[in-house]
Amino acid sequence: MAYQFPVRDVHYLLNHAADFDAVRETGAFEDLSDDFVGAILEEAGKFANDILAPLNWTSDQQGARLENGKVFTTPGFKEAYAQYVEAGWNSVAFPEEWGGQNMPNSVALSVVDAMQGACISFAMGTMLTTAAVKALLAFGDDEQKRLYLEKLVTAEWSGTMNLSEPQAGSDLATIKTKATPNGDGTYNIKGQKIWISYGDHDMSDNIVHLVLARLPDAPEGTRGISMFLVPKFRVDSEGNIGQQNDVKIVSIEEKLGQHGSPTCVMAYGDNDECIGTLVGKENEGLRNMFVMMNAARIDVGMQAASVGEAAFQKSLEYAQDRPQGREFGVKSGPATAIWNHPDVRRNLYTMKALTDASKAICLANMVAYDVARRSPDPEIAAKAKEREELLTPLSKAFSSDRALETTNIGIQIHGGMGFVEETGAAQFFRDVRICTIYEGTNGIQGIDLIGRKLGMGEGKLAYDLIEEMIENADAAIATGDADLARAGERMKLEAESLRENTAWMVTAMQTKPEAGLAGGTPFLEQFGYVAGGHYLLKAAIASHGAKAADASQADYHDSRMHIASFYCDNLLPRAQGFAPAVRAGAETVEPLEPTLLSA
Amino acid sequence: MAYQFPVRDVHYLLNHAADFDAVRETGAFEDLSDDFVGAILEEAGKFANDILAPLNWTSDQQGARLENGKVFTTPGFKEAYAQYVEAGWNSVAFPEEWGGQNMPNSVALSVVDAMQGACISFAMGTMLTTAAVKALLAFGDDEQKRLYLEKLVTAEWSGTMNLSEPQAGSDLATIKTKATPNGDGTYNIKGQKIWISYGDHDMSDNIVHLVLARLPDAPEGTRGISMFLVPKFRVDSEGNIGQQNDVKIVSIEEKLGQHGSPTCVMAYGDNDECIGTLVGKENEGLRNMFVMMNAARIDVGMQAASVGEAAFQKSLEYAQDRPQGREFGVKSGPATAIWNHPDVRRNLYTMKALTDASKAICLANMVAYDVARRSPDPEIAAKAKEREELLTPLSKAFSSDRALETTNIGIQIHGGMGFVEETGAAQFFRDVRICTIYEGTNGIQGIDLIGRKLGMGEGKLAYDLIEEMIENADAAIATGDADLARAGERMKLEAESLRENTAWMVTAMQTKPEAGLAGGTPFLEQFGYVAGGHYLLKAAIASHGAKAADASQADYHDSRMHIASFYCDNLLPRAQGFAPAVRAGAETVEPLEPTLLSA
Repeated sequence: MAYQFPVRDVHYLLNHAADFDAVRETGAFEDLSDDFVGAILEEAGKFANDILAPLNWTSDQQGARLENGKVFTTPGFKEAYAQYVEAGWNSVAFPEEWGGQNMPNSVALSVVDAMQGACISFAMGTMLTTAAVKALLAFGDDEQKRLYLEKLVTAEWSGTMNLSEPQAGSDLATIKTKATPNGDGTYNIKGQKIWISYGDHDMSDNIVHLVLARLPDAPEGTRGISMFLVPKFRVDSEGNIGQQNDVKIVSIEEKLGQHGSPTCVMAYGDNDECIGTLVGKENEGLRNMFVMMNAARIDVGMQAASVGEAAFQKSLEYAQDRPQGREFGVKSGPATAIWNHPDVRRNLYTMKALTDASKAICLANMVAYDVARRSPDPEIAAKAKEREELLTPLSKAFSSDRALETTNIGIQIHGGMGFVEETGAAQFFRDVRICTIYEGTNGIQGIDLIGRKLGMGEGKLAYDLIEEMIENADAAIATGDADLARAGERMKLEAESLRENTAWMVTAMQTKPEAGLAGGTPFLEQFGYVAGGHYLLKAAIASHGAKAADASQADYHDSRMHIASFYCDNLLPRAQGFAPAVRAGAETVEPLEPTLLSA
Repeated sequence: MAYQFPVRDVHYLLNHAADFDAVRETGAFEDLSDDFVGAILEEAGKFANDILAPLNWTSDQQGARLENGKVFTTPGFKEAYAQYVEAGWNSVAFPEEWGGQNMPNSVALSVVDAMQGACISFAMGTMLTTAAVKALLAFGDDEQKRLYLEKLVTAEWSGTMNLSEPQAGSDLATIKTKATPNGDGTYNIKGQKIWISYGDHDMSDNIVHLVLARLPDAPEGTRGISMFLVPKFRVDSEGNIGQQNDVKIVSIEEKLGQHGSPTCVMAYGDNDECIGTLVGKENEGLRNMFVMMNAARIDVGMQAASVGEAAFQKSLEYAQDRPQGREFGVKSGPATAIWNHPDVRRNLYTMKALTDASKAICLANMVAYDVARRSPDPEIAAKAKEREELLTPLSKAFSSDRALETTNIGIQIHGGMGFVEETGAAQFFRDVRICTIYEGTNGIQGIDLIGRKLGMGEGKLAYDLIEEMIENADAAIATGDADLARAGERMKLEAESLRENTAWMVTAMQTKPEAGLAGGTPFLEQFGYVAGGHYLLKAAIASHGAKAADASQADYHDSRMHIASFYCDNLLPRAQGFAPAVRAGAETVEPLEPTLLSA
């Protein structure tokens, strides 16, 4: 069976783990009835299953290729893209004013989930277009909006983000690309950019590049970077496509995975004829880019979990089909499906529990993102903004790290077949590998968490969530259900441990930051596991109530409660495995002589 | 800088973690002076660095290919193989009677380490030849030995192991390949075998296949399997190569990694003219194959760790070369090498600590293997045999799981470049992926550990090692060194926790095995982390003494002690992360309705 977007699961997580009601309560959206949201997810699933999923394997085998300076995408991508635009999947969360559907970003993220799980190489491109829309909505001038926004909202034109240069990856302070004023309000852009996803392709008539560059006499470092809009084809004042801009595709990368997504090296202004316009204010480009980057990080987290789900489905099917060995205690007779072996089920439940925990964090993150922007109550909005800030590094890093584990287990369940490319299990593992790296490596997410996020209000953002975790754990205990109660007890223990480490980390970052920085990654791991358990448990408590209220759904809710308690029994304790490393201190990573490290 | 076999590190681990003196004390070897062993490792390193390492990238890009029924290996492999044979690297641990050098298997494993780290695709083939030699030494008749053994010892001819069939992978009970007596002492072999590494190639004049098959009227299941020797080319009574046997290469697999190692689907006896001879007794083939399999599992563990070391070296070099960002607190000036960021050093130390912990377990395993076979003292031999049995699943599974983590971190350190194949970081990750699968999946290693190994003497094998762990931890505390003392305290805590879980598991496997089986994998994880810490700490205590005795080596010993204490502070606690899952019980993996798992 091919990939099927798990509509029911995602809808369930959105409602019960991520508290979608909080979005409804903003009153900012016309119709957010459960049926309507469900219908959107259902339709997104059909598109993903029917149009995109069949392209996934092809995208790996016949990836993007560069010929005569043009990028050609996987056979079938162009047609699928046209249908994607036609169906309006790109415009879900954008304002009606620009052709959008004014739905919450959390609903759009669920749509993203459908598309990414079906074909990450395809969906990757649309993620960048979404980011470009957000940039122009926030910082574009009227003319830029008029000329580009509607086309980008529909994805009739696509967008890219151009940050990195060979010397400037994680550290963008050293960006060299130059922007020289032409005197007519436009700028001459010149420089090389790398890691440009969908920097060129054959699916849309135009491509809108958002490019970070330096104005003459701009300050050094990150405060001297501005953002420019550079179209592939110039656009006249009526919005008509004109002459090709001076933008060249130098090469595309041969990558471990995501072969269908062209990753371009781009040369802007080789002939000094690359014309762009300033987006936002001078020298505020990096800050503005990071406004989008934060949403993109949530997208990447979801993207990774989506691939985890696809890997899970393939493995679940294989485990039911593949006979090997007998059940314990059975001495004769034919081989049984490996699904019947406890260790195989452990692997499968681990995959699903990690995937859903990841999705729950991402959805809760995006619900907070919506509420922060749309709640009319400033206090609610401010609290939501804090939650959004706290969860973003967790969405990005925990989900992508766990998706690597999930896709890895997927190979393992397939045994030797998993190592054979034809099976497809390895593709998930390869495709998802980049998610821990792009949009800020997970190491940087750790630094963001312990630096910026714990820095806000001396740990307040974390303490607030930990408080909720403990309340939630008490609620789990109060259900009287033995499994949920045990999960609640474990959650309290882990939340308390996280609180202690948070306090340690807040102090460390204030008084001996080099000690804090040594523990960023394990702190992120610990926090991620606890947060994942929290959101799953929250949904499980809702299941416990729903089951009592409506017996017809009992089996489904039982399965959800089991996955949550499986997580709390088996995976949540891993947080304890990281807790001591958080406090190991700067000495633990003191610089040793490299030549003596491998001798 | 290209891969350099870390002679000093491996020699150090062999002596101080694995207690190589125990092999010396058997008195079974002529010259095992430290200088002599060091000279062998030095020479093995030169061969690996100079001859094999330059082929590694080529082996990925120009893998083995099948043309007209013949397998052609990566350009350069054939020449390297000839030099490998000429230099005698295959014969290190084999009897002089058959052209071997009568060195310990633990020394041979260190040689394997050198070769695997340089080019796993090449070294993979020689591992199988080694297994074939061990099979014939143990079970071959005089004629088989006379005709084949010397050629295999030198690797002039190569060997293969043929176990799996499409329906029979982890479960060999269902093997269908048939062996029919021809009446002249030979057998007609007929059937298909899969996953045959180096089932064909162009590097040697002949290939000796060891094939599991069923005699007519053999009992069903595992007790009806016999082992046969099937040469690619028939060999006359003088040992001359004659007519080609009826052995066909059906296809080779397109794999995630190890492209240079041809993985063949083989058809034996398509024309009913495949002639083989029985190895060992009728119906004892599987048992006999497992005698070798156990040694092969240690080899696989080392192989994985070797690739981990190669990934570490590449990442260490990259981290020193790549400028990005500034050190904490530095406000201006050029970017610093990422090595100077605490999180990057954490990643690098994690790679090295996991690699050396893995190698230490494998080497201790093989030292026990040597002592078990060569000690004249039956009591010492018996105890060593027990240790060998206990450590084998840990060598195989812990090392291969950790090598996946290590090579994964290697990609991460390279950032976006790690996702680009040209960099080579991804190749390690792909190549090593199979190590958790072949020679018995790691799930099966878990079952072996909790079933067979804990079953011996009701946990005695584990308790004996745990006792040593605690003594060793006390010794670490007694050094008075603050880092070692802290490591010792953590080790005691983890060893006690492991003892508790061992007791739980021994009882569970006797009284409610389905509960035990649900916890096999986390128990293996817990045990692996604790065992790795134990052996690193053991070596660190030796370093503490050696440093006091000879100040000229102080820097090196400091670095070893630091890696050990890094492990105990940061990685050993992960054992606590797995401990609760061990006891989660059968309920934790109770079968759920699959259609409700992803809905």
